[in-house]
Amino acid sequence: MPRTMKAAVFVEPGRIELAEKPIPDVGPNDALVRITTTTICGTDVHILKGEYPVAKGLTVGHEPVGVIEKLGSAVQGYAEGQRVIAGAICPNFNSYAAQDGAPSQDGSYLVASGRCGCHGYKATAGWRFGNLIDGTQAEYVLVPDAQANLAPIPDGLTDEQVLMCPDIMSTGFKGAENANIKLGDTVVVFAQGPIGLCATAGARLLGATTIIGVDSNDHRLGIARRMGADVTLNPTTCDVVDEVLKLTGGRGADAAIEALGLQATFESALRVLKPGGTLSSLGVYSQDLRIPLDAFAAGLGDHRIVTALCPGGKERMRRLMNVIASGRIDLGPMVTHRYALDDIVAAYDLFSHQRDGVLKVAIRPA
Amino acid sequence: MPRTMKAAVFVEPGRIELAEKPIPDVGPNDALVRITTTTICGTDVHILKGEYPVAKGLTVGHEPVGVIEKLGSAVQGYAEGQRVIAGAICPNFNSYAAQDGAPSQDGSYLVASGRCGCHGYKATAGWRFGNLIDGTQAEYVLVPDAQANLAPIPDGLTDEQVLMCPDIMSTGFKGAENANIKLGDTVVVFAQGPIGLCATAGARLLGATTIIGVDSNDHRLGIARRMGADVTLNPTTCDVVDEVLKLTGGRGADAAIEALGLQATFESALRVLKPGGTLSSLGVYSQDLRIPLDAFAAGLGDHRIVTALCPGGKERMRRLMNVIASGRIDLGPMVTHRYALDDIVAAYDLFSHQRDGVLKVAIRPA
Amino acid sequence: MPRTMKAAVFVEPGRIELAEKPIPDVGPNDALVRITTTTICGTDVHILKGEYPVAKGLTVGHEPVGVIEKLGSAVQGYAEGQRVIAGAICPNFNSYAAQDGAPSQDGSYLVASGRCGCHGYKATAGWRFGNLIDGTQAEYVLVPDAQANLAPIPDGLTDEQVLMCPDIMSTGFKGAENANIKLGDTVVVFAQGPIGLCATAGARLLGATTIIGVDSNDHRLGIARRMGADVTLNPTTCDVVDEVLKLTGGRGADAAIEALGLQATFESALRVLKPGGTLSSLGVYSQDLRIPLDAFAAGLGDHRIVTALCPGGKERMRRLMNVIASGRIDLGPMVTHRYALDDIVAAYDLFSHQRDGVLKVAIRPA
Amino acid sequence: MPRTMKAAVFVEPGRIELAEKPIPDVGPNDALVRITTTTICGTDVHILKGEYPVAKGLTVGHEPVGVIEKLGSAVQGYAEGQRVIAGAICPNFNSYAAQDGAPSQDGSYLVASGRCGCHGYKATAGWRFGNLIDGTQAEYVLVPDAQANLAPIPDGLTDEQVLMCPDIMSTGFKGAENANIKLGDTVVVFAQGPIGLCATAGARLLGATTIIGVDSNDHRLGIARRMGADVTLNPTTCDVVDEVLKLTGGRGADAAIEALGLQATFESALRVLKPGGTLSSLGVYSQDLRIPLDAFAAGLGDHRIVTALCPGGKERMRRLMNVIASGRIDLGPMVTHRYALDDIVAAYDLFSHQRDGVLKVAIRPA
Repeated sequence: MPRTMKAAVFVEPGRIELAEKPIPDVGPNDALVRITTTTICGTDVHILKGEYPVAKGLTVGHEPVGVIEKLGSAVQGYAEGQRVIAGAICPNFNSYAAQDGAPSQDGSYLVASGRCGCHGYKATAGWRFGNLIDGTQAEYVLVPDAQANLAPIPDGLTDEQVLMCPDIMSTGFKGAENANIKLGDTVVVFAQGPIGLCATAGARLLGATTIIGVDSNDHRLGIARRMGADVTLNPTTCDVVDEVLKLTGGRGADAAIEALGLQATFESALRVLKPGGTLSSLGVYSQDLRIPLDAFAAGLGDHRIVTALCPGGKERMRRLMNVIASGRIDLGPMVTHRYALDDIVAAYDLFSHQRDGVLKVAIRPA
Repeated sequence: MPRTMKAAVFVEPGRIELAEKPIPDVGPNDALVRITTTTICGTDVHILKGEYPVAKGLTVGHEPVGVIEKLGSAVQGYAEGQRVIAGAICPNFNSYAAQDGAPSQDGSYLVASGRCGCHGYKATAGWRFGNLIDGTQAEYVLVPDAQANLAPIPDGLTDEQVLMCPDIMSTGFKGAENANIKLGDTVVVFAQGPIGLCATAGARLLGATTIIGVDSNDHRLGIARRMGADVTLNPTTCDVVDEVLKLTGGRGADAAIEALGLQATFESALRVLKPGGTLSSLGVYSQDLRIPLDAFAAGLGDHRIVTALCPGGKERMRRLMNVIASGRIDLGPMVTHRYALDDIVAAYDLFSHQRDGVLKVAIRPA
Repeated sequence: MPRTMKAAVFVEPGRIELAEKPIPDVGPNDALVRITTTTICGTDVHILKGEYPVAKGLTVGHEPVGVIEKLGSAVQGYAEGQRVIAGAICPNFNSYAAQDGAPSQDGSYLVASGRCGCHGYKATAGWRFGNLIDGTQAEYVLVPDAQANLAPIPDGLTDEQVLMCPDIMSTGFKGAENANIKLGDTVVVFAQGPIGLCATAGARLLGATTIIGVDSNDHRLGIARRMGADVTLNPTTCDVVDEVLKLTGGRGADAAIEALGLQATFESALRVLKPGGTLSSLGVYSQDLRIPLDAFAAGLGDHRIVTALCPGGKERMRRLMNVIASGRIDLGPMVTHRYALDDIVAAYDLFSHQRDGVLKVAIRPA
Repeated sequence: MPRTMKAAVFVEPGRIELAEKPIPDVGPNDALVRITTTTICGTDVHILKGEYPVAKGLTVGHEPVGVIEKLGSAVQGYAEGQRVIAGAICPNFNSYAAQDGAPSQDGSYLVASGRCGCHGYKATAGWRFGNLIDGTQAEYVLVPDAQANLAPIPDGLTDEQVLMCPDIMSTGFKGAENANIKLGDTVVVFAQGPIGLCATAGARLLGATTIIGVDSNDHRLGIARRMGADVTLNPTTCDVVDEVLKLTGGRGADAAIEALGLQATFESALRVLKPGGTLSSLGVYSQDLRIPLDAFAAGLGDHRIVTALCPGGKERMRRLMNVIASGRIDLGPMVTHRYALDDIVAAYDLFSHQRDGVLKVAIRPA
């Protein structure tokens, strides 16, 4: 095995570049995974632009598909050479937060908080790859808490078939799970990018029978229909709130899923809801949100607003790969472009500018 | 029986006055209840000030304790002369909304909504007394859907012991129920007015073991400790967010209950939460709310924000009266003043100006 | 309108016959519905055989599809001539039980219970048609609590498309709902009669990705695959418990649904479960059940056993008809035979002997 | 540090004796804890009698209170010398079962199952101390997965105050949690031994307002009243089912908790339930259970039967110790006798024969 590897690292705002880095040592609870396929996420673009800060020199990327190269001494039940994925969020399931029902929030990191300098736990601390530790856009990645996070790929599934599991599918499906869907529900999904498309597919899998996909891009609305939307609405050509009221005979939607991260979509998601409805929010917002008084029934509407960070862990990955293996859903069409790791700068350029109808890009080290 | 009765009616902003009105006829599903005790709610003060619009001439008030005077022909299992209460919210349990899990939202009323004039269901439509129909600050009140809403008072309980059940206790306890409390939780209750005090008591009944009561009025904090708060904090003399972090060793609160309806308390309620925590909102807000980006972990904190309208119905009332009868909680101290119905204008004056340490005022027609 | 109607009545064990009965009067909360299509249920066969006792002269049947003939004076929002269904279970939603979360159990009927002759509430009291009051195998049926129970049929759906909604579909889907299905679950459905087939379809709609249908009738297993089963097992040719363990790599099933009502299927349902799994029971049992100690991990397996009575009410019916209208599922193939009401004795004969591959029989008064 | 220690080991049915054993080595994820107090559980008596099989030579006991003697190299955030407890059940939180919501079931152990010799996961595999690995009735115990299982004792709490947390309190409270208690519920707890007493206390903490404790021992009923029972019933002097119906006006209990493990109590627990009620089972049964058809409403009563294995993990222990620290409950009176480890054979003799009003025995190595 070589001593060094190629890795895409954050250099400074505007620059992610390939670098040569040492292949990391493997501690007792770690696993070293040789990456066979990974991808670029919208969050990586925020990192590239300097909008989300990470340490200089950090390897970016958080969606690993690969082969176990080396197992830590305390990791049991796996074999070197085995094909695996791990979640974008790699929780420490031994943490208080995980045992308390929020593994993605981990709870291992105290940060200064409050005016007096006292300390609180950092939200999102379960997200480690390409955030707190070196990530997956590299030839190798070190998976922490490997016993909890390595998920074997079922025979017969290709890298690209499972490439959405670590992040996009887990997040989008969580949006549908948080929407508290009951048989016969009407669910509106705002934005049909990769996560919104998975939320659409997830809402269908969970029993919603009127799924309304919303996006200003008609091409994406077409994909939304293939992923399970019964109706699609383009807000540039209709009033979405009005249309939802018409489609539901005035009842309003049982749930709305926000998958973009903007005030406008958050607000519309609230406005389409029935009294008693649920807003499941997936977006990563970049500014304060406003809740309009009328859309909120002044606080008396029995509304629920629920946010989520992508769930991880080997059981979550096992279930998502089962969904793929069952043939219930085909996320293959979401991989629209393919690049070698050597060409990742070009891949970032295409993806960050959303050129050429790109949805997701597969990156292959070799 | 007389043909007319005295009733406190909304005349115009700033004026609620006694008037003589006909005693209403009793339809097949109604019950006429002779009021023996009722009270004034903060919402009534909003009506008095013209901040919440109701029809001129409407009898106000929504907290009935009384005696069945006459039963509709289709109402079974009750007896005239029986002592009863009914919830402030008197849902139509035959409605779609009730069968769908949101009886307080009723769903019987379509209102213009959206820009195109299409119609949506009105939130809060289950609140009828003193809002959509004549209320309880009168000698008699007509209870709609009586089969669903009349709750017999257990022997041995006085009017004042059950006077909080129809609204304050039902609302405050719902705030605790929505907070998803687990054994050993830390819960922060913002504002210790009558509803906040009931939320404090409810959080204790449901198993929270560190209950932190917050109010800027030290007298109310003293009552909060009697109602179940383990710790009290006055935001005029400390930084509440910092203190909660200290008290929880940096974990943050498992849940926060907002019982005031202001941006400041809503925002603090969000800031004291652990990642993965729940904000249970009870306040009636009077302006748009802002969710600060950092307090919300940019949408990635696995947070839940839940709002509530007071639950009603005879089963809810039965349970709340059971709580009182069990001796688990004594809400008697919350009735600080007593007035005859004839003096209700003076009662409004005292209550709306929060004079003389008033918490709740008992109003007696005779 | 005529004064009398034809109705199938229970005469004595072994005899259900057509009789001429008065068309009932319509009280303020009732609706008289002219039946256009109804069907025979397995429960009706138990009544026919005298295994389930009902009053002599009672009109049997509990699955109404029809047209509103006359509305009670207090029933609002419907029109005479409107096409409607009502649930097999017609709850009084004003009851304590309904407000307490169990509308099908109603709670209006006290029956002698216990050794001392004290009284308890009768389970299943929400089931009224053909049990406590005259049923639907007649030209007309009186629907009690019509405001809560009449559900308009969406335009474009035929009688036969919605004929399963009142009972079979509502029951089967409830079995899936009670199974607590999560995305990626393995669910085993024991027995693929009409209710089991609907449970299979429901499990698929709710996100199970490995659905294993079990029946000793290969023809029904074929239908099970069309309704959503991924795998089918015939217990006469394999060991179902062994096969489920193999199919799940030793994990066991996440949930099992019992849809027959026998000790053997109940016990197998328990044995296929993973530790922590759920047994959702739909069967109507006719003798005491035995829980084998080993299958139950001596009470330490974190198992759940959940039973259900068919849910009713207009909101439930609305949702089920939405599922049909969405095209997610087609229950049409379950109607295998059609009879005029005049020939209902022959229909019972066919159905009770399960001849000619019968699944469900449509009965038409005219 | 010495090389060997004293430990109570299972020799053969009828014999548990003190032996000298090596102090175990500490792997990277382990912690060695010096026991300061432990206790004897009813399960240990089953082991003593040979009714529950364990390996000969195994150290018994599963309730550790002690001091960290040595930490594994990968265990972080603890200090040697720190006072800690660990749950009786020490789950591997990295397991599929734990990530799937059933940590006590672990899922790490495959056992032969089914007739064909195929393999299924062993229930209860999270219970390791004194079952699968050496237990706590010794001078030292090795805690596996220490990062997940070591829970620091809050300052100010004595060993005896937290001695019930690892098993009795965690189990009893789980029984109350599984009973799905809502404010105002009536809950009947069958058997008032240590676990039943904790279930009684837990039901009170969670908001039940009519708690009915049942036991045939009047002394224990007296303790039950101190732990929170509102009413106590002795089945040797009254018909419990009749009494519960009378106390609830015929409604039946909302939930019943079985804490003994016998057919008679299981069956009575079912019979006191309202339609729609929950039976939360804690007992360890020693023979097949029978569900009487009538008590089960033939499967149509919307009943739930839920079983539980004691929850473990550091977060669970943290919460239980918070309950103790809050002063909400005092389990001190449950420790009725104290023995040195050297005298453990005498302690078993007293405890297994339930002499001298014994509830729990504290065992101290030094």
